[in-house]
Amino acid sequence: MHVTSESAKKAIDGALKKAESTGTRMCIAVVDSGGALKAFYRMDDAWVGSIDIAIKKARTAVYFGMPSGEIGQLSQPGQPLYGIEHSNDGMITFPGGVPIVDDEGFMSGAIGVSGSSVENDDLVARAGVETIGVCDLPEHPWRT
Amino acid sequence: MHVTSESAKKAIDGALKKAESTGTRMCIAVVDSGGALKAFYRMDDAWVGSIDIAIKKARTAVYFGMPSGEIGQLSQPGQPLYGIEHSNDGMITFPGGVPIVDDEGFMSGAIGVSGSSVENDDLVARAGVETIGVCDLPEHPWRT
Amino acid sequence: MHVTSESAKKAIDGALKKAESTGTRMCIAVVDSGGALKAFYRMDDAWVGSIDIAIKKARTAVYFGMPSGEIGQLSQPGQPLYGIEHSNDGMITFPGGVPIVDDEGFMSGAIGVSGSSVENDDLVARAGVETIGVCDLPEHPWRT
Amino acid sequence: MHVTSESAKKAIDGALKKAESTGTRMCIAVVDSGGALKAFYRMDDAWVGSIDIAIKKARTAVYFGMPSGEIGQLSQPGQPLYGIEHSNDGMITFPGGVPIVDDEGFMSGAIGVSGSSVENDDLVARAGVETIGVCDLPEHPWRT
Repeated sequence: MHVTSESAKKAIDGALKKAESTGTRMCIAVVDSGGALKAFYRMDDAWVGSIDIAIKKARTAVYFGMPSGEIGQLSQPGQPLYGIEHSNDGMITFPGGVPIVDDEGFMSGAIGVSGSSVENDDLVARAGVETIGVCDLPEHPWRT
Repeated sequence: MHVTSESAKKAIDGALKKAESTGTRMCIAVVDSGGALKAFYRMDDAWVGSIDIAIKKARTAVYFGMPSGEIGQLSQPGQPLYGIEHSNDGMITFPGGVPIVDDEGFMSGAIGVSGSSVENDDLVARAGVETIGVCDLPEHPWRT
Repeated sequence: MHVTSESAKKAIDGALKKAESTGTRMCIAVVDSGGALKAFYRMDDAWVGSIDIAIKKARTAVYFGMPSGEIGQLSQPGQPLYGIEHSNDGMITFPGGVPIVDDEGFMSGAIGVSGSSVENDDLVARAGVETIGVCDLPEHPWRT
Repeated sequence: MHVTSESAKKAIDGALKKAESTGTRMCIAVVDSGGALKAFYRMDDAWVGSIDIAIKKARTAVYFGMPSGEIGQLSQPGQPLYGIEHSNDGMITFPGGVPIVDDEGFMSGAIGVSGSSVENDDLVARAGVETIGVCDLPEHPWRT
């Protein structure tokens, strides 16, 4: 089950609200459970370089069913997944991408945010998800 | 001058309204005057393959300051721009991408639509532009 | 709903059987409803160049919910979709890619075959689908 | 000499058996001695992001005739192959890719596995190889 257009819109609106309240200028991307772009919004004066990062964060989160930042802890030099960023046409493994999970534990997609500090990016992404679901998957394997 | 977030939203809403009235399921992309993605919306059950086509149509229109379909007439076998689709990481040169031009003749971006016949795609794209400007540029060189 | 591992295996076995009976050496790819690779099999002595073609045919069929060859009729010079092959990291629009549709009209994925004439490719692809479903989608929009 | 279809199938079945016994959900790829995809299988609910990683691990192993994880030790910051992941359209240099070597010391291909911890990935990959050969190459230059 993929995130619907209506839910994607709600998630982006929720993220936007948080971005505005924190005075940040964000790119916000929502992808479906296969990683395909569902909706995207770039605030005025957001970094142009954040477009691709927001989309890649969302894809990273949905491709592995976890927040992008968790993968980043495992991909540091000397850690088990060092270099995973080279897969899948480029992964972004710092915070700001989180899965969208519904009440029944299905991952319907993910949201990715870029444009400020990674703490803010993550905060805004989670604010988006909270309007339509939760970020935490049940133990792998989840249902898709 | 780039299309603003607010204008991009208006353009997408205008396009959506037309898509709904024609019973089509579209991917709708708005890019700024540099071709960078500003906003995107995929209706439920739209073709997954249309995501990239909508974005590429918008980029094609803004990269050359004309509707994507006009370039397609020049890129047919034997015509002067034959093969132009190979440039810029892939152009889409059939109808559905149109520039967004303001009252003073500035091109602020473009909209690209994919998901139905090229006639419908073009119709929906133009409906989007009409909410915020016009599609026709003054004689080249225009002002960006 | 995506094609399951078990169904993908059945589809490949069905396609293989047909390939063997026609004396052809094929690459056979099954993708899920988002276009992600589910299973792949290359027969001994099949063309190496057919690996990518088989995968791209399957993706093309699932991205637009129709046999790849139908798109190819619309993408000829002078036709409405001329140049669509430049989208989505490369589409293959000649026959050999067909959707996999279940009893309820859901498209669960697609199969793509390459290695012989396009007629044979298409025949083998359809033999694969027939072991687990049908190739024909109900009128667009289908359910995914 | 390339891995045959029959051997590739055996290797995947061997890997699958190990994956099932360890309760993991894997993507399993077999490539020939030139790095071209021979067979692929994605278990239900395996990470979508693991498709590309499994294939890249197999390619990495065969391109350099050693387990992917060995290259990863040489590609850490300060080590001689730092950044090798940027070559060959993306290498994956953590464990889970191993060469397939026959009785006479010929490398016929490689297997790559992704979907769990790198220890599990490596275990499953080796279980696949063991059904048809060994993972260890004689001293370079080996025979291909």
